[in-house]
Amino acid sequence: MTAKNATPVTVIGLGAMGTALAEAFVKAGHPTTVWNRTAAKAAPLVALGATHAEAVGDAVAASPLVIACLTTFDDTQAALGPAGASLRGRALVTLNSGSPAGARETAAWAAGHGVRFLAGAVKNVPSAVGAPDTLLYYSGDKAVFEEYETTLKVLGGDTVHLGDEVDLAALYEMAVGAMLLPALVGFFQGAAAIQARGLEASTMVRFAGKWLDMIKSLLPIYAREIDAGDYTDAASSVNLFLAGAAHDEDLVKETNVDTSWVAPLNDLVRRAVEAGHGEHSISALTEVLRGPVRQP
Amino acid sequence: MTAKNATPVTVIGLGAMGTALAEAFVKAGHPTTVWNRTAAKAAPLVALGATHAEAVGDAVAASPLVIACLTTFDDTQAALGPAGASLRGRALVTLNSGSPAGARETAAWAAGHGVRFLAGAVKNVPSAVGAPDTLLYYSGDKAVFEEYETTLKVLGGDTVHLGDEVDLAALYEMAVGAMLLPALVGFFQGAAAIQARGLEASTMVRFAGKWLDMIKSLLPIYAREIDAGDYTDAASSVNLFLAGAAHDEDLVKETNVDTSWVAPLNDLVRRAVEAGHGEHSISALTEVLRGPVRQP
Repeated sequence: MTAKNATPVTVIGLGAMGTALAEAFVKAGHPTTVWNRTAAKAAPLVALGATHAEAVGDAVAASPLVIACLTTFDDTQAALGPAGASLRGRALVTLNSGSPAGARETAAWAAGHGVRFLAGAVKNVPSAVGAPDTLLYYSGDKAVFEEYETTLKVLGGDTVHLGDEVDLAALYEMAVGAMLLPALVGFFQGAAAIQARGLEASTMVRFAGKWLDMIKSLLPIYAREIDAGDYTDAASSVNLFLAGAAHDEDLVKETNVDTSWVAPLNDLVRRAVEAGHGEHSISALTEVLRGPVRQP
Repeated sequence: MTAKNATPVTVIGLGAMGTALAEAFVKAGHPTTVWNRTAAKAAPLVALGATHAEAVGDAVAASPLVIACLTTFDDTQAALGPAGASLRGRALVTLNSGSPAGARETAAWAAGHGVRFLAGAVKNVPSAVGAPDTLLYYSGDKAVFEEYETTLKVLGGDTVHLGDEVDLAALYEMAVGAMLLPALVGFFQGAAAIQARGLEASTMVRFAGKWLDMIKSLLPIYAREIDAGDYTDAASSVNLFLAGAAHDEDLVKETNVDTSWVAPLNDLVRRAVEAGHGEHSISALTEVLRGPVRQP
């Protein structure tokens, strides 16, 4: 069942995230066409009311708005290439990970095919797609964003245009995403330590969640310090973290968990102390990170 | 002004956190005695109504409940040692970082001095002390916890006893705390990258905060996978993170930010793939971390 006047949408790429995007459009009443290299992935969406196109050109021709959710920008160009002349005049929105350079290249490719282009990112897991609080951000042609803003908001209520420079979403994606793997590995290390004591990892979840809330509460303070370049009003000093570094060996002794991945982090802390930041806020590590890149 | 029947409390160690603890007790109407190696730190608390003891023995003698907030367990024993016979019969609660071994040693030291002992941790910043949602956890003698639970709740409404084994708080402290420095360095790297583009780090705070909320939402899922030892239902696979690892060099090229600290994390991802976890959940990294410790 489709809603009156709802913009037809095509979704290219039906991994877990692409499937969630297509499902959200179908449920919101948008005529939704889907395409995937492996056609079988389309079946559950067709059962919900989506239309499956065998050829990518037909998929692209079916809607003015084409959402591509493939792994990389290269994959996107490779998948859409065969659509050829059908691409002309379409609005293409990418929701994949990739570098700012990849976004710029894809913008040039899109321009060469007469395609209007927005590069975006979903800042959440597939199951959160469509929720009022779910964040997606986009960069590139603002006219495209404004034309399709209502439709894009089907994917998440917190929908933001970062600017006309097409690579901004990829830049923020990398900047914001840099916390994910390190935070998770910290959690996994903790889980292994708790289990080494014969306890369940689940017993630390509530505490770890509150710890993340605490970290979140610090971010505006650190960002202010970094923007001002003034690290002198330290709630948590670099020296305090240096003292904490001594405990890594204790954890190895207690639990036999591999903490060797933490050594370069402690090395950053030591370099910050050497650079005179000992009594400064831990956010002064930013100054060490933006120094000249060291060769390994 | 002190409340009727409020338990007298002594706070040893008046750094930022110790001062916040003492202030919370004073404001809640507890007769509060404070001691610090550098006596001048006591002045603002005395102005609020606390009593300053010159000698640590007098500070300890003033209250049945002694809270020590020094940097390490060694510092705690060194500071309290001169109190000698005054220690006998007191309940000592430590709120410092330190290893499980340090907690066990301090328990033995306390027992030798006739002191009942709880080892605890404040899971938040000094400014959050006293708030209804602030988490503190304790381990050790449960009778001590129950006797002083109401008083300890002055420091934070979310007050938990982890168990009778005295080193549990230090173990959880290390396990939960393992996310802090890595998550912050990820944020600082992102801030440096955003600034390299001429934008303010503050522009990423809202997005980074939502990203932490997303990470928090994943923790119970990952903990369940880790406890079950079943990583086959992967929302985010190890291979997906492997693909993301390729972007680190892109970030260096774009922003000249030092990402070398990330290399060992990507190495963990590669080791997980080699161990056959490629299509498993990223939480399978836990299995790699609990392998035999590699010598650098």
